[in-house]
Amino acid sequence: MSNNTYAIIGSGTLGGFYGAKLQKAGLEVHFLLHSDYHHVLQNGLIIKSKDGDFKLSQVNAYNNTNEMPKCDVILIGLKTTQNNLLAKFLPPLLKENTVVLLLQNGLSAEPEVAKIVGEQRLIGGISHLASNKLSFGYIHHIDDGSIRIGRYARNYQFAKITNKMREITHDFEISGVPVYLTEDLLLERWKKLVWNIPYNSLSVILDARTNEIMGNANTINLVVEIMQEVLEGAKSCQRQIPDTYIQKMLDHTKKLQPYLTSMKIDYERRRPLEIEGIIGNPLRMAREAGIKLPKMGMLYQQLKFLDTRNIQNFSS
Amino acid sequence: MSNNTYAIIGSGTLGGFYGAKLQKAGLEVHFLLHSDYHHVLQNGLIIKSKDGDFKLSQVNAYNNTNEMPKCDVILIGLKTTQNNLLAKFLPPLLKENTVVLLLQNGLSAEPEVAKIVGEQRLIGGISHLASNKLSFGYIHHIDDGSIRIGRYARNYQFAKITNKMREITHDFEISGVPVYLTEDLLLERWKKLVWNIPYNSLSVILDARTNEIMGNANTINLVVEIMQEVLEGAKSCQRQIPDTYIQKMLDHTKKLQPYLTSMKIDYERRRPLEIEGIIGNPLRMAREAGIKLPKMGMLYQQLKFLDTRNIQNFSS
Repeated sequence: MSNNTYAIIGSGTLGGFYGAKLQKAGLEVHFLLHSDYHHVLQNGLIIKSKDGDFKLSQVNAYNNTNEMPKCDVILIGLKTTQNNLLAKFLPPLLKENTVVLLLQNGLSAEPEVAKIVGEQRLIGGISHLASNKLSFGYIHHIDDGSIRIGRYARNYQFAKITNKMREITHDFEISGVPVYLTEDLLLERWKKLVWNIPYNSLSVILDARTNEIMGNANTINLVVEIMQEVLEGAKSCQRQIPDTYIQKMLDHTKKLQPYLTSMKIDYERRRPLEIEGIIGNPLRMAREAGIKLPKMGMLYQQLKFLDTRNIQNFSS
Repeated sequence: MSNNTYAIIGSGTLGGFYGAKLQKAGLEVHFLLHSDYHHVLQNGLIIKSKDGDFKLSQVNAYNNTNEMPKCDVILIGLKTTQNNLLAKFLPPLLKENTVVLLLQNGLSAEPEVAKIVGEQRLIGGISHLASNKLSFGYIHHIDDGSIRIGRYARNYQFAKITNKMREITHDFEISGVPVYLTEDLLLERWKKLVWNIPYNSLSVILDARTNEIMGNANTINLVVEIMQEVLEGAKSCQRQIPDTYIQKMLDHTKKLQPYLTSMKIDYERRRPLEIEGIIGNPLRMAREAGIKLPKMGMLYQQLKFLDTRNIQNFSS
């Protein structure tokens, strides 16, 4: 285990889970919380997990990064819709060698975060975690939890794996979290989008769980056609994802329990949807390369309509 | 006024309205009814209309075409989803010179009906009518009501206007229903689809009225892009609709009162949606000409999913 200290920015079902796993393994972890702050400060965190339940009766809880110590690794577990907060949250936490691990869905958050923290310390991460929150400070880890991490370099160029990344990998692995290292962050982001774009979008637009989408020949075909567009999008960025990856994603999804996607959960809770990160930015990257993706464009427009109405109705 | 006798097959908000107008003008009309049969047999029809309310305390009501007299003109006011009934309904009503007026939305119903009645007597019609049913035998005529009619000839070739069509036009016009005659039925069908495809589809998929769709920049753009695909579809059938027609449809829709489309009404009542007539058949005609319409294809897939679930949930 390293001597790294960890700050978890956004300790929800994702950040809270990984932070708890790291603390349980013996690492020093500091949690930034919002809605759960008072509860967690008093009662700690409980993880109900397929790998074994555990409780941390005391955690370092904060509701303000100015009160947190500077840390060696900052794990960002916020939704991309909250990234406007990072310019305020991050500077107080940075030491000279602090590394920032941006564990988010979608594309093109890294260039924005790099403006705040600098490129040289930024690592992008993709989490494969199925979890949800049962109540304040009480997280249910349902499945998987592995992460893929790659260093960010300007315009998502290839970037060599550093010793710091190997240290972080080791910290996670002794915590029971498998980590895959990559020199090609952009490829991993596009690969995750092959699943995220069709299922997140259609679950909201059609008010459907994954098993319903996979139970109708028309929506199966639609999922395949959307995945083909995502592959075209990746190709427009010189990233090749083989066609066989589509069938792999379909087979994987058929095996899932009836599953509510993260975007659908956000929609039901009337939270802003991660439309720009998951669809808008990939569309724009492809468009800059001269590639039109009509079905993804239509998903984007439908979601923007639904998201706007969803938030308006909640506010009014 | 002619001596034509009229049979109305499907006397709902559309057939019931036109039949009542014809009878009020003095023509002999026979109504085939289903759910309203007993009520209308006893009480007649009431039309609440922007052009003046009226009541027909007695109408010729039937629930079986075998009991109806053969007529000169058969007006089909059923939804296209019920066209499987026509092979049973129509033969008992046909005289040598009977004309069949198919007053339906969408494309490609004529070739099917021609198999039953023969091509030479078949006229296609497109109705611009806003109406709904208030209760049994009680129809509310909200707006417009004009119709466009054109003779059907094999493969939707151009077809000359006949004297019989002029007679029917005259019957309708003295009843207060404006009629436009055309030699190009297919062009008129495609023109109606420019409105019907985006608004009917999106009203169901997004659970939205026309004013909501026209109140969001993303859905306005989406409507325009779908309309452009409909124009491409028409072009694939050698029918030119000018680009300016799109703006005309947008302006017209902005002026409408918040409007529930016919497909949305069907969806809410858990009736089968006219997906094949309105989207499936136009898609297939374009595909046969080698033209792909990706956004219309996606609307089709989304609607098929929603329609199947809607009917299943109702049955189970």
